Amino acid sequence: MQQQILVVGSLAYDDVETPFERRKAVLGGAASYFALAARLYAPVRLCGVVGDDFVQSDLERLASRGIDMAGVERRPGRSFRWLGRYNYELNTAETINTDLGVFADWQPEVPSSFRDSDTVFLANIHPRIQLRTLEQVRSPRVAAVDTMNYWIERERDALIQVISRVQIVTVNEAEARQLCKTHSTVRAGREILKLGPRAVVIKRGEYGAVLFTKDRVFWAPAYPLEEIRDPTGAGDSFAGGLMGELSRTDDIDDAALCRAVLNGTVCASYAVEDFSVEGIDRADPAAIDRRVRELERLVTA
Amino acid sequence: MQQQILVVGSLAYDDVETPFERRKAVLGGAASYFALAARLYAPVRLCGVVGDDFVQSDLERLASRGIDMAGVERRPGRSFRWLGRYNYELNTAETINTDLGVFADWQPEVPSSFRDSDTVFLANIHPRIQLRTLEQVRSPRVAAVDTMNYWIERERDALIQVISRVQIVTVNEAEARQLCKTHSTVRAGREILKLGPRAVVIKRGEYGAVLFTKDRVFWAPAYPLEEIRDPTGAGDSFAGGLMGELSRTDDIDDAALCRAVLNGTVCASYAVEDFSVEGIDRADPAAIDRRVRELERLVTA
Repeated sequence: MQQQILVVGSLAYDDVETPFERRKAVLGGAASYFALAARLYAPVRLCGVVGDDFVQSDLERLASRGIDMAGVERRPGRSFRWLGRYNYELNTAETINTDLGVFADWQPEVPSSFRDSDTVFLANIHPRIQLRTLEQVRSPRVAAVDTMNYWIERERDALIQVISRVQIVTVNEAEARQLCKTHSTVRAGREILKLGPRAVVIKRGEYGAVLFTKDRVFWAPAYPLEEIRDPTGAGDSFAGGLMGELSRTDDIDDAALCRAVLNGTVCASYAVEDFSVEGIDRADPAAIDRRVRELERLVTA
Repeated sequence: MQQQILVVGSLAYDDVETPFERRKAVLGGAASYFALAARLYAPVRLCGVVGDDFVQSDLERLASRGIDMAGVERRPGRSFRWLGRYNYELNTAETINTDLGVFADWQPEVPSSFRDSDTVFLANIHPRIQLRTLEQVRSPRVAAVDTMNYWIERERDALIQVISRVQIVTVNEAEARQLCKTHSTVRAGREILKLGPRAVVIKRGEYGAVLFTKDRVFWAPAYPLEEIRDPTGAGDSFAGGLMGELSRTDDIDDAALCRAVLNGTVCASYAVEDFSVEGIDRADPAAIDRRVRELERLVTA
């Protein structure tokens, strides 16, 4: 049976500045990046919200990639806008401004036609909303959650509750340290596992990612790019490749999780090669497979 | 024939502070760390200099590990002393004070009994001294050089000359970026290769190391430790494992270099588990092999 991937998260316009280039009001948002990566693996259904100002052709662009947009609501008000700036190392985003707009008090309603989805990604949003959304899906086979420092600080209990309800947690290294109050990535990975999930993926940008399960640690390299143009969306594209690969795997064992992490890594590498969703939008399954094989060679002694 | 490893570098006393612990006047220096790691693979000969204040039993301790100390001169004056402090991430050392003492105007004289060494490590020192030392070794099969930001800034031309004369360059990531004026580790690795060496190893601390040769890139994980006590000496212990493994390899091809990087990684992991040389001094060949196999599993999808 064809698997169906559901993503719940933001659709946004980003103003992005790197020390070398800048772009204004380009298509962004966690759900956009995730969906454009995951659709390379299986059909994707998107729940999101946009304001009056969201350009119809941007929604049509996602739909034209086979993404089911039946879960996107249009509401009076402004769309989510993010203004961020990267340092010279292109590894840390400084948020200059966030205007949540209609995203602020959005309560996602999963359309009934989406409720049989088996693979679910809860992109970064209030953990209570993540939980309520997850409860609307009938019997997800595998669900993953992403979050951010803001919720770790302010909604720790709700976040821990979501973590205990999903199979996979993806966090970046700083978030893992903050959540577990330790500098050690190894310790943090093991502590998050104790909260209940089957797997924890700690993302380390250009240093790759580390997967923790009960029985093993898997160290994935990043795809070695000579140039990164815009790191925005790397984490959500990573999640897209990860969940995409899992959606087509019958048995979610450690080997499948490792392969999924490599696929996530490759999707992230495409995302950062260009501004906005341009990089991930250009990727195709054959190109992804080629880079996954390159990653495997990269670590072979 | 039994290979012989020669190291030229500092013997020192370190005052080390981490946010959690501190130690005063403990045995350190690049040559100490290197030699204690490399002696796990083959006989090691050490060229260094100490002052009046260097405790005889520290020299005897190294000698008792089979390290040939015939190249160690004792001179009037103070021994090299370094006072460093680490941040909470335990990844960046702030040098509070360096007192070079007798190391300052030392011109190493390689004893004639050492001049047939086939594996040579030129630890961090003035690049012109590295060059003159290398010229005293008759026909080294493989030589490696390490350096630091100070020489990259002040003695760039001399450093580039040394780099062009050795087979292997080991630098940390910040040094690679500084030397090549690029943030990209991939680009830096390739640019250093163009200067002449057969292999470049860029060390990334807890993120592992990357090896560049003409034909391939090899991404080595760091050994995942839950706790690091003192990062001092990690790079020199790394070099000890790297050159040690190469000293017992007939054909220094890419596969041998990859294995050598994994051995270096493991030696570094022992070094950082304790203050001073205690960690690397406790390692033994069987323990090294076990961790090398763990590293191989760590990256196997």
